[in-house]
Amino acid sequence: MVDLVIEGCTVLVHGEDGEIRFVEDAAVVVRDGLVDAVTSAREAADLPAAERLDARGQLAMPGLINCHVHTPMVALRGIAEDLPVEEWFNDWIWPIESNLTDRVVELGAQLACAEMIQGGVTTFADHYFSMDRVAAAVVESGLRANLGWAYFSSQGPEGREQSLDFALRMRGAADGRITTSLAPHAPYTVEDADLEATAELAREHGLLVHIHAAENRAQTDNSLERYGRTPIEVLRRAGLLDVDLLIAHGTGITEKDLPLLQHGTGRIAVASAPRGYLKFAWDSTTPIRGLAAAGIPVGLATDGAASNSTLDVWESMALTALVQKSTEHDPTWLTARQALDHATTQSARAVGLGEQIGALAPGRRADLILVDLTGPHVQPLHDTAAALVHSARSSDVRTTVVDGRILMKDRRLLTLNVPTIVAELTAELPALTERRHGRRIQEYEG
Amino acid sequence: MVDLVIEGCTVLVHGEDGEIRFVEDAAVVVRDGLVDAVTSAREAADLPAAERLDARGQLAMPGLINCHVHTPMVALRGIAEDLPVEEWFNDWIWPIESNLTDRVVELGAQLACAEMIQGGVTTFADHYFSMDRVAAAVVESGLRANLGWAYFSSQGPEGREQSLDFALRMRGAADGRITTSLAPHAPYTVEDADLEATAELAREHGLLVHIHAAENRAQTDNSLERYGRTPIEVLRRAGLLDVDLLIAHGTGITEKDLPLLQHGTGRIAVASAPRGYLKFAWDSTTPIRGLAAAGIPVGLATDGAASNSTLDVWESMALTALVQKSTEHDPTWLTARQALDHATTQSARAVGLGEQIGALAPGRRADLILVDLTGPHVQPLHDTAAALVHSARSSDVRTTVVDGRILMKDRRLLTLNVPTIVAELTAELPALTERRHGRRIQEYEG
Repeated sequence: MVDLVIEGCTVLVHGEDGEIRFVEDAAVVVRDGLVDAVTSAREAADLPAAERLDARGQLAMPGLINCHVHTPMVALRGIAEDLPVEEWFNDWIWPIESNLTDRVVELGAQLACAEMIQGGVTTFADHYFSMDRVAAAVVESGLRANLGWAYFSSQGPEGREQSLDFALRMRGAADGRITTSLAPHAPYTVEDADLEATAELAREHGLLVHIHAAENRAQTDNSLERYGRTPIEVLRRAGLLDVDLLIAHGTGITEKDLPLLQHGTGRIAVASAPRGYLKFAWDSTTPIRGLAAAGIPVGLATDGAASNSTLDVWESMALTALVQKSTEHDPTWLTARQALDHATTQSARAVGLGEQIGALAPGRRADLILVDLTGPHVQPLHDTAAALVHSARSSDVRTTVVDGRILMKDRRLLTLNVPTIVAELTAELPALTERRHGRRIQEYEG
Repeated sequence: MVDLVIEGCTVLVHGEDGEIRFVEDAAVVVRDGLVDAVTSAREAADLPAAERLDARGQLAMPGLINCHVHTPMVALRGIAEDLPVEEWFNDWIWPIESNLTDRVVELGAQLACAEMIQGGVTTFADHYFSMDRVAAAVVESGLRANLGWAYFSSQGPEGREQSLDFALRMRGAADGRITTSLAPHAPYTVEDADLEATAELAREHGLLVHIHAAENRAQTDNSLERYGRTPIEVLRRAGLLDVDLLIAHGTGITEKDLPLLQHGTGRIAVASAPRGYLKFAWDSTTPIRGLAAAGIPVGLATDGAASNSTLDVWESMALTALVQKSTEHDPTWLTARQALDHATTQSARAVGLGEQIGALAPGRRADLILVDLTGPHVQPLHDTAAALVHSARSSDVRTTVVDGRILMKDRRLLTLNVPTIVAELTAELPALTERRHGRRIQEYEG
């Protein structure tokens, strides 16, 4: 007896060469939280199962992975719009974040988890404060996450120690759904000695490091002017390219940085959140073509909703394809199948789970979504890959499953109560958004 | 007794200065297909009405307007992906379009209408062939449309005559929901003499002209090289800037073209479909800032689904904001409120209905949509304009109303049966997509 059979659907699978294929009239069999088999609907029909889902007209694919997000910042969605990043940080976000409470962090994380489950996300990599409260939201929501407690050098060594304590204490929590990172904020807020100490700790404890770096070209230019080194060179000197490293954004990565990333001995990846780069009017986007040539996986991300407005990774997938074509002046680059590769294989590698998630194959965790392909906005289906990337929307995700457990069924959330979360969060907003105190947690200079 | 009261919602209204405002706990009263009043929920509570909609938690706003689309091309969604425009036209679209039948056109238009109603579109401007069949889909769907029968000079004078015959015969059809245009394809497929004759006919019959022009910079460069004139200068010499004119795309409009557009005596507008420009990797987008300075309205559009993959005008609204910020290197430009102005007032002017639609005000047609603001991806609501443009999605449109008639209620389509349309269209696809005959309806040289 297996736990769950999802039958009658098309299934997105990865061939041995990594190539994406679509198997029609198929079934996904789940046992003990793992994919047991991808088989034909006919073979699955006779299989005894505790639960069956009729998924005709739908497509099963690996759940999306949000490779860089600050979930609690959904509390600030829309608070500071149409501004340059300097004003956004210094006049709004960093003053407001001096009011953060554990309660706001947990409610924000819960709301973000609800949004992501509805948007087909099954795993996220979070980089924020009060991460015990985010971990509680992970436990409650049923999602999978890699969590890192952020720190600045302005906190003294306590910031780094808190990040390490959390990472060691919480890895493996939530029945193994929680993995952890060390989370120095960025080379412009964490000093070289702190970065070096972080690399040491990562090596000693086998931890991923999750950091913002070369977020935009202005940061790279400022770094060159101040230190004579790009942010990526700063990371290399600190030893961070020789540990497992997740770099957020990297739109300021230069041609000269690429060989450094290529020759780092750690598993290095970049998370790209293209919507925010457009919204802040940055003059570049993540250089995916160069990173691909250097063998660096690029995962999809949304960043926090305070800047990005949304945690819609499906939209990130489409925007990645569109913006890359435009930036490279090449309509044949970043095809729909490449976009799906970023959304699955490359994103799984980016969050350090390249062997566990990112594909529907025997032995992988049963993290999957069912996408409705019958809508008038998707039909007719000449090209399933293109339909997924360019025509379907996150709202076409009908069902979300993590570790074989159904978190959303036919658009109904099963683990979180949105009206209650919104009501409680809304009551916290006046205290959260108060800025008359004149404090801020940091100063942005880039 | 009024026909319809929509109560308890937030309503997007335009102040006397054109400024967008949001009225909370309000109601929209509909009588005889028109907006009778926007009032408070309390005042509306006692009003006798044939039908009432409880719209608490929702926002009422003018229906979206798709200012440039080829509805029947949804039949080719996904047929030719990740290609440059030349190959897309010459190897796929124009060979396939030599197989078009009236039946495919009607089924495609029906499917497109279903997609647009679900996406909150209440009016579209279509530019295609066999337009009597598109008109039939307009009648059946309940949408409003401006329809133009496309022609090339390669058809001889018959093409232009057919376009005129249709425009005169069908204007005012579907209880006034159909208006019409003359629809020369583009300056690169319609000769100067034909463009001049078109301008004459437009003036004589008081018709809008809907044309592709300066679609991309390559077209402008080619036009300068061949004729010593930009496509906009070609239009001006033909007299087309002195009639009411809807220009599709215009990403190749130059600085020097702007004063020509500004000083044209016709009501001139541009329709922008930014997704397709990214997908084709064109090196520019519609120069909205320059057009705004010249007083030229820019309406939102999707183009056809064969190139654009989707008829999601809501996405066009978000992409317009994002791409404009990026292109102008200015995060303060094209704010959420400006994007909503393009979606409402400017789009209504673009399709020649600036006095009839585009705002919820007494005497305007009752073309409106109800948007759910309660989803976890929209909450909390610090900024309603930003929430609409950057967080909400077309799938948040719950209800679509045209001329006071409900076409979709709580996501259920009331005028069209999608499974039937898809089944019939799918049966037509093998004959439609056959290319071994070696014919094509035109040759693209730009």
